[in-house]
Amino acid sequence: MADAITPRSEDYAQWYIDIVKQAKLADYSPVRGSMIIRPTGYALWENIRDTLDGMLKETGHQNAYFPLFIPQSFLAKEAEHVEGFAKECAVVTHSRLKIEEETGELIPDPDSKIEENLIVRPTSETIIWDTYSKWIRSWRDLPILMNQWANVVRWEMRTRMFLRTMEFLWQEGHTAHATEKEAQDETMKILNIYATLAEDYMAMPVIKGAKTASERFAGAVDTLCIEALMQDGKALQAGTSHFLGQNFAKAFDCTFQNKENQLEHVWATSWGVSTRLIGGLIMTHSDDQGLVLPPRIAPTQVVIVPILRKTGGEPVLEAVERIEKMLKDAGIRVHVDAREGYRPGWKFAEYEVQGVPIRLALGARDVEHGVIEMARRDTFEKETVPQEGLTALIQETLEAIQTNLFDRAVVFRDELTTSVDTYDDFKSVLEEKGGFILAHWDGTAETEARIKAETKATIRCIPLDQPYEEGEDMVTGKPSRGRVYFAKSY
Amino acid sequence: MADAITPRSEDYAQWYIDIVKQAKLADYSPVRGSMIIRPTGYALWENIRDTLDGMLKETGHQNAYFPLFIPQSFLAKEAEHVEGFAKECAVVTHSRLKIEEETGELIPDPDSKIEENLIVRPTSETIIWDTYSKWIRSWRDLPILMNQWANVVRWEMRTRMFLRTMEFLWQEGHTAHATEKEAQDETMKILNIYATLAEDYMAMPVIKGAKTASERFAGAVDTLCIEALMQDGKALQAGTSHFLGQNFAKAFDCTFQNKENQLEHVWATSWGVSTRLIGGLIMTHSDDQGLVLPPRIAPTQVVIVPILRKTGGEPVLEAVERIEKMLKDAGIRVHVDAREGYRPGWKFAEYEVQGVPIRLALGARDVEHGVIEMARRDTFEKETVPQEGLTALIQETLEAIQTNLFDRAVVFRDELTTSVDTYDDFKSVLEEKGGFILAHWDGTAETEARIKAETKATIRCIPLDQPYEEGEDMVTGKPSRGRVYFAKSY
Repeated sequence: MADAITPRSEDYAQWYIDIVKQAKLADYSPVRGSMIIRPTGYALWENIRDTLDGMLKETGHQNAYFPLFIPQSFLAKEAEHVEGFAKECAVVTHSRLKIEEETGELIPDPDSKIEENLIVRPTSETIIWDTYSKWIRSWRDLPILMNQWANVVRWEMRTRMFLRTMEFLWQEGHTAHATEKEAQDETMKILNIYATLAEDYMAMPVIKGAKTASERFAGAVDTLCIEALMQDGKALQAGTSHFLGQNFAKAFDCTFQNKENQLEHVWATSWGVSTRLIGGLIMTHSDDQGLVLPPRIAPTQVVIVPILRKTGGEPVLEAVERIEKMLKDAGIRVHVDAREGYRPGWKFAEYEVQGVPIRLALGARDVEHGVIEMARRDTFEKETVPQEGLTALIQETLEAIQTNLFDRAVVFRDELTTSVDTYDDFKSVLEEKGGFILAHWDGTAETEARIKAETKATIRCIPLDQPYEEGEDMVTGKPSRGRVYFAKSY
Repeated sequence: MADAITPRSEDYAQWYIDIVKQAKLADYSPVRGSMIIRPTGYALWENIRDTLDGMLKETGHQNAYFPLFIPQSFLAKEAEHVEGFAKECAVVTHSRLKIEEETGELIPDPDSKIEENLIVRPTSETIIWDTYSKWIRSWRDLPILMNQWANVVRWEMRTRMFLRTMEFLWQEGHTAHATEKEAQDETMKILNIYATLAEDYMAMPVIKGAKTASERFAGAVDTLCIEALMQDGKALQAGTSHFLGQNFAKAFDCTFQNKENQLEHVWATSWGVSTRLIGGLIMTHSDDQGLVLPPRIAPTQVVIVPILRKTGGEPVLEAVERIEKMLKDAGIRVHVDAREGYRPGWKFAEYEVQGVPIRLALGARDVEHGVIEMARRDTFEKETVPQEGLTALIQETLEAIQTNLFDRAVVFRDELTTSVDTYDDFKSVLEEKGGFILAHWDGTAETEARIKAETKATIRCIPLDQPYEEGEDMVTGKPSRGRVYFAKSY
């Protein structure tokens, strides 16, 4: 049996680690800040990846692959970009190790010092815009709609599995356009794709919005984002889509001849989601019994456990095999656990921890009566149902679980979203309740910084679909045009 | 129109570069030895990856992801392994850049020197076996059948796109077993999967064999390989599967309790294929007109070019749309190029360079007569065929192209495989004809090294299915038990 999971009420951070480890999603690695993604975690990532990849290809994006290493000088070309990334990057300085004769120790061979240091990519705008400047000549070469699935490295000091790791997996899209409007439309199109991925597949409700200037991506004119709310009342930035204006085109001298035969700088976007999504998924749905997974991205949707006595198990195993085939043929991801030497109760607990949406159990008497036991992971409801019509019932139930997970996450999020008008109320809500707080803000970086310093809450986003509402900043009393989302965040 | 492609007869190396660049598979990057994989090249890699990934999953393997960085001390734990990789690795020594006040230049911040240097993985045996030593306790934990799709870095001095690059993409499988026999069986199972991938999907015939001791993977007891023959008569190692014995288990103290309650070291395999396969694909099938792709892995299998006059193009476009849908519904990967401003002849040349297996062209008169023009990339055959029954004809033709490419590659390979009995014959065949040379070898590293030094030919493999045949080493006259494959190689 798996070790006990720390209850959320006791220690939320420890609960999170327990889930990650006991559902076998990931493990610590000997490299500080890097994790090992185990098969269950990786299968989850593959499902998220394939879902998003399909949506990106359908909207005309193509995958490509750019180098892991970025020449140090490239980073320096966009002023804000270097400011943002130089402080946390892995620097390659040598190309060989050798054994030091005196000590017998392995050291970087001083003779192998490389000419220009290489940075392990924290993101690829610089090397991609250097390339685009060679590929793009005329408006006929535009747009370029490229994406890459890759690993990136940011030298984080405080790390948490999936949520913040030194190395992580992600996709980064980099598009080039002839007009400002087209680039802005692309930024929004991607934001909507990210929201669809989060809500329709991961059952994780998100707020779509724009970041404030101080929270923008280093080098962006505008950063759009999707923000989700975790069970502990903290927000999680789940994906970002940047309108880069002509900043990188200017830094890398990327121009094109427009239809009027004039040279113009190219307009750009970049956007990404990462393995961090898995952290968000865990903290949206899971409970004290373990992981809870939305059926659409669960690696295993249905597990079947045969209940076997010491003898006479053949009819049960035959029925299980028949049901497995029937469900597989209907496109359901099913796993049979007929391992000997483990009690059914042990197996039930195991799949509960791993978050498999539906568990079926079948014993000799069930076979006789043509029924099967079905248990839902999301509600713990258990019922005995006829084997006839099982496929349709499973399909309906998977959809019901998907909907239920999303709906209850929306209810939770809405209950933990509070509108306040005074700074005192803001502080007490933040302290006592947490969650999203909608409040008026005067639009200045000073006020934003003051609130952050005093309360640790940041502006998560300026919501895109917020109705215009005149008001006064809760701190300064200066005019505001609408409420923004504040929260403490991961 | 694309630039001219250098004929193979004139300069094979330049022909190869021309194909890679003009078929838009890859491009040079600003990082020496690293390349940019462009969308067409990456789509090809995705098809190879998905095909292999399916076969690996079907045989019980699971994907996982281990860190990019390997602590320097890990490399040192397996003596041969460090010997093999320390000379060509990227060493991360700092975690921050800063601007030097005096010069204004960006430098690694001396205060950010990291405690233990990190190596960018050249391969992951060390970090994975360190992990397995924590995961494995008893025979119940075995086997572990893991694979990862990842990027790796080896600091090569002489690079060639796809064939040998500093960074490349690959899969690396790492399995752990309770018995020697099971690990050896796994090594062979994977070799057969690799051969299936190469022959049945990439239409690239391969010889299955074992490497000699001097050509083995650093740390392996036995290295099996598939070897292909390129059009210029040089061999290409296309995939390797290693039986690692207990070497890494011993280096990382990875033991398990067997069924008899005794502690034993775990048995291991590792195996990989990489983006190098794309280089092999190019040099197996392509011609002076451009890339030639086997239909099963071609990103686009059929391209349709409508032939439009200045007016009255609607019936043509309608017919094209209908045919496109019909082919897509049958699961054929089809692309329509209805771009204006490009002549049909220009488009024909473009898809010829890109290696699309079948080209369909359709004009107003074809619509009237219910026919369409079909051209095969492999044979340049062109015929006008009825639109009725087109789907079945296309499917048959794609299969015919697949078979033809494989068959002609086998004929080419067999014609360029020569059996010789004397060293003089060996040298003259190598000089005048090239290709694989089957010759007797006395089994010593000395003779192997002498032949390599004198002729640049290496033993590509000791074939697995070679009949036992007594003979004498062509150089030393010492006894031999069978012929081995020699060749110059990439």
